[in-house]
Amino acid sequence: MVCIILLKPFNKTAQVRRGTLLHEAARLAGIDLHLPCGGQGRCGRCAVILEDGSQARRRSTLRLSQADLLAGYALACQTVVEGDIVAHIPPQERVERRLTTDKTAVGIELPLVYDPGHEQPLRALPLRLPPPTLDDNTDDLARLQRELARQHGIQELQVDLPVLRRLGRTLREAEWVVTAVVEMIPLSPPGPIGANLSPPGPPILGGVSGRGASSPQDWGVRGADWKRGAGGSARLIDVHPSDHFSLWGIAIDIGTTSNVVYLLDLQTGRVVGQAADYNAQLARGEDIISRIIYASKDNGLAELQALVVGTLNRLIERVCRRQRVDPMEIVKVTVAGNTTMLHLFAGLPPAWIRLTPYIPAANQIPAFTASQVGLNVHPQATVDCLPGVASYVGADITAGAVSSGLATTDKLTLFVDVGTNGEMVLGNRDWLVACACSAGPAFEGAGVEHGMRATEGAIEEVWIHSATFEPTVRVIGGGKPHGLCGSGLIALLAELFVTGVIDKAGNLRHDLGTPRVRRGAHGDEYVVAWAEETATGRDIVLTRVDIDNLMRAKAAIYAGFSVLAQSVGIALADVEQVLIGGAFGQYLNVEKAVQIGLLPDMPWERFQFLGNTSVRGAAMALLSQVVRRQMAEVARKMTYLELSMDNRFHEEFMSAMFLPHTEVERFPRVHELSGR
Amino acid sequence: MVCIILLKPFNKTAQVRRGTLLHEAARLAGIDLHLPCGGQGRCGRCAVILEDGSQARRRSTLRLSQADLLAGYALACQTVVEGDIVAHIPPQERVERRLTTDKTAVGIELPLVYDPGHEQPLRALPLRLPPPTLDDNTDDLARLQRELARQHGIQELQVDLPVLRRLGRTLREAEWVVTAVVEMIPLSPPGPIGANLSPPGPPILGGVSGRGASSPQDWGVRGADWKRGAGGSARLIDVHPSDHFSLWGIAIDIGTTSNVVYLLDLQTGRVVGQAADYNAQLARGEDIISRIIYASKDNGLAELQALVVGTLNRLIERVCRRQRVDPMEIVKVTVAGNTTMLHLFAGLPPAWIRLTPYIPAANQIPAFTASQVGLNVHPQATVDCLPGVASYVGADITAGAVSSGLATTDKLTLFVDVGTNGEMVLGNRDWLVACACSAGPAFEGAGVEHGMRATEGAIEEVWIHSATFEPTVRVIGGGKPHGLCGSGLIALLAELFVTGVIDKAGNLRHDLGTPRVRRGAHGDEYVVAWAEETATGRDIVLTRVDIDNLMRAKAAIYAGFSVLAQSVGIALADVEQVLIGGAFGQYLNVEKAVQIGLLPDMPWERFQFLGNTSVRGAAMALLSQVVRRQMAEVARKMTYLELSMDNRFHEEFMSAMFLPHTEVERFPRVHELSGR
Repeated sequence: MVCIILLKPFNKTAQVRRGTLLHEAARLAGIDLHLPCGGQGRCGRCAVILEDGSQARRRSTLRLSQADLLAGYALACQTVVEGDIVAHIPPQERVERRLTTDKTAVGIELPLVYDPGHEQPLRALPLRLPPPTLDDNTDDLARLQRELARQHGIQELQVDLPVLRRLGRTLREAEWVVTAVVEMIPLSPPGPIGANLSPPGPPILGGVSGRGASSPQDWGVRGADWKRGAGGSARLIDVHPSDHFSLWGIAIDIGTTSNVVYLLDLQTGRVVGQAADYNAQLARGEDIISRIIYASKDNGLAELQALVVGTLNRLIERVCRRQRVDPMEIVKVTVAGNTTMLHLFAGLPPAWIRLTPYIPAANQIPAFTASQVGLNVHPQATVDCLPGVASYVGADITAGAVSSGLATTDKLTLFVDVGTNGEMVLGNRDWLVACACSAGPAFEGAGVEHGMRATEGAIEEVWIHSATFEPTVRVIGGGKPHGLCGSGLIALLAELFVTGVIDKAGNLRHDLGTPRVRRGAHGDEYVVAWAEETATGRDIVLTRVDIDNLMRAKAAIYAGFSVLAQSVGIALADVEQVLIGGAFGQYLNVEKAVQIGLLPDMPWERFQFLGNTSVRGAAMALLSQVVRRQMAEVARKMTYLELSMDNRFHEEFMSAMFLPHTEVERFPRVHELSGR
Repeated sequence: MVCIILLKPFNKTAQVRRGTLLHEAARLAGIDLHLPCGGQGRCGRCAVILEDGSQARRRSTLRLSQADLLAGYALACQTVVEGDIVAHIPPQERVERRLTTDKTAVGIELPLVYDPGHEQPLRALPLRLPPPTLDDNTDDLARLQRELARQHGIQELQVDLPVLRRLGRTLREAEWVVTAVVEMIPLSPPGPIGANLSPPGPPILGGVSGRGASSPQDWGVRGADWKRGAGGSARLIDVHPSDHFSLWGIAIDIGTTSNVVYLLDLQTGRVVGQAADYNAQLARGEDIISRIIYASKDNGLAELQALVVGTLNRLIERVCRRQRVDPMEIVKVTVAGNTTMLHLFAGLPPAWIRLTPYIPAANQIPAFTASQVGLNVHPQATVDCLPGVASYVGADITAGAVSSGLATTDKLTLFVDVGTNGEMVLGNRDWLVACACSAGPAFEGAGVEHGMRATEGAIEEVWIHSATFEPTVRVIGGGKPHGLCGSGLIALLAELFVTGVIDKAGNLRHDLGTPRVRRGAHGDEYVVAWAEETATGRDIVLTRVDIDNLMRAKAAIYAGFSVLAQSVGIALADVEQVLIGGAFGQYLNVEKAVQIGLLPDMPWERFQFLGNTSVRGAAMALLSQVVRRQMAEVARKMTYLELSMDNRFHEEFMSAMFLPHTEVERFPRVHELSGR
């Protein structure tokens, strides 16, 4: 039975089969609804108003009040179409499509001395072939192989059918003067790699799980002892009908929230452009767990795969258009991202990442071609997903460990990338130990009453007057505030604590004589902005529940630091530098992060903010096989601590559920400040 | 503009765009018209009657008489749709879909001692994996690799995305007890191969073209020095959720006319079933040149590719159903066929095969997976197209040279495969020289007034009474005759000659007092069967024009033999054995073939009919990497003589345009018989 769905105010329609979910019907009508919880009916964000809903069956109304139900509200993800339906979609529930600003690439420098002839396997080889005659009637492929051997020393050539299908026409149209684009493959088996990286191995740790054998899937990247023109094996990417061909590469970071693309000139090694946008999968779940659940639905994996590839293709198209680069000249792609994001990108089911004992399909996904996932670059371009370590310590961390310098430094270093999860690595060039803490999405503005992502209208910085308890705020974009983003929440929590509005357990004090501390619908709250000052016309508040969520998030991350340090028998104070990666770190106020006990209390000069270390690592791996092998080596030797069953972690977490910490001596400078 | 085409008597319709050709419209309506000339308007076989043809534009009417035009006839391949059309399709123009009989496989023996452990690269490896725990949380792929290394010594494993996508589910559903199906890849580079085959190389020949370097694309088949369980590299084809998995293979011969499929048990090396059918491409052209022309049309290549894969899939489905084999257990496919057929199968444009200097895209097409061409076996099964030598000496000849024993014999041997082209090889284990002669399709019943393929109703044998000149005929199937097939034409020509009805130049004698020799519409003719004796109700005759066509065909083939012998400085009489492959040879009467000068005059015991040597070679290559390397070596060392510009060939051809030959001393026994 076909049912007709009319969606107002757009007056768009869809014809769907009985039994379809309303959000799916909306998608078919061209309207993407926001499903932050992945369509599980938990978040209540996809509520629509049924104007004619007699043929709609509500599967779950858990998130709707009696008043909502009487007003006709239904959750689109929980509403089954049983006949014709007329629904009204409130504007705020449509997916926000605000673009993050694309910065110019000027000034992006990679910590790498680029040597294209030695470290970079892509080659554009000019080739003049003698045209065939009755006396030299070798076939097209053998002629190409013969001349690549004679003119460029390539002894063995791998050719895929799609390339061979075009070869004859190209050779003749170009009148036998062409450019062969090849990716060199090292001849020798993997030897001891990364000699300057490996020595002693990680310290032996009680209760630390071994990772087993590393993946030997470093396809085409091992023992790179081929030299320019010195022969060897190669994979033919294409034959181009001209004696000139530019070689471009794309480095990608697939974040749960944001995707970033760098365009690189493989001949100079320079980053010539970048573009960033939200991951379109956001409409199917804001956090990793929601996405994994969505992927297990019928066609859910294919849908999520298409969404992220769609985002990446838009970014590639945009960066290419700006730089006037033909996407067909992009012949190599490297991809970093957390393990779940790489699974969804490659179309690998992520189901077992979520279930104990948390097993990915592959930490090192074998290389594939762009055409296999639908990436709009050269269809034969190699797509190299960088190696990860475990389900919750992915290729973004491996890439970050290399691009941040952690993997090559002598200094005892803590590297941390705070997103929905806090992922962290402690170590130096000799050993590395990593863990991931489920911090929850509070620092990304989710799970907090007035939380939001760090886009226009977000309060990103807060100061509170120590006598009047009146706040001053800074809003992204300068207009009226809509809510609070992660850095704003941290700043607010810190200011509330150091001004004494809240105590070390997070309780609000009512004896301060300010109307900003009050009892709200859900308990105590602090008013950051009055209704008349906000863009929403409602008070922006931080509730006691929000404070608990933030404290749990910061406690999880600090507990991770502590367990890492304990596991190798050092004190956090011994850490010589703290490298902070990820978008979050870019806007973080260290002082305030230390004040709430999120970051350890140490001299500020030890902290460095590095921005997106993941995409930078992907760019370095794109340019250099030596770096790429370093990453494989780092992934192999990084010891992973699984915290979910670790008693020490639980104890450390409980101790960290105070501001800044139960043991105030760990935060001497904060103690001095707040102890007045 | 959309035009509606109504096709009677089926009353099927198609909606097509203005400008579509009528045969294409018919195809869209589900009616396949026969296009023996490939849609060039040359053969006149796709004529239809336009009942309402005011909106049809006839592009060419070359093959239609004035009377035909007045009766409304038009060639479907030359009629452009310019509006709504009603057409009537005469029943005889629909494609004949008669199946050749599938023989049982009992008695098919391959000349091969089968050693699966040593020569055969497919393995079904039973594997018990320890389930993952928090302490052993290696990812699924690395766990599989680790256990394949531990339990089976496989050090390196290539895994494609589609296999990895299923891995996690299979491992868990099977509770970690599985069978890994792998294809072993030899570790060592190609050494000197086929030591028992190679020695001196071909004799040096004036005017013989070198083939250039052989293709190094013997992917996964070289230097096969891996041993069972002794490690090495492998490609993962699948992981099967059981501790038992059968390994099956398919060997294919793609002929221009017929396709043949053998099903082999890779564990025993036995051929367990076979199936054969006409190549569905026949509807788009009966000979190679017509197909090449059709392939150059819009979408023509894709259409031909789909047609042959459709035929092969029906054959595979049929042979699997009979043997109760799951097609998903077919994990390897080898394919022989002429160069054009392999191009069309792999989707490679064959255009330059037809144009001087006759260059294929590849004589050795790189291996690909079944999913890349749509073959309905395991999608990851390797499809290995066997190596050919040149545009007109293809993999069918290489396969035949090995399976017939030519490549390993000490005897001076002539191997010949007569189809639309006559392809022949002269040599022994030390050297091989090959050529192809364009015989034309006369021996396949085309280009002859009453010619037909060797199916039911074809006259396959003829005897003529030497006094009355009355014929006796044998008809395939035993009913009334429809026409003459190749062997019938050869027998008829020979009988006409030895009874003196025609002279050595092919002229009919009118002074014999028989009404069977008469003057017809197109010159002199001999009546083989009177109208009342035939299935068509028309006299079946052999015309002077037919005789010329047959003499040109036999002259081309005999001239090929002569030039081959000359090129190496021997006499044809020195040939110790003549091996005849191909379907044609199966029904040939040697005595009569010698009488017309098609085959050289030598003792009959030197002739051996081997049937389909091509598919048998494909089956041997499927079972043995040693045989597969022999074929690569044979293809490499076979010297190809291009005859199209060869003066000797032209002279030999002119000398052979008599019965049996200008130089009667070359046919002493025929001379004795006819010289009375």
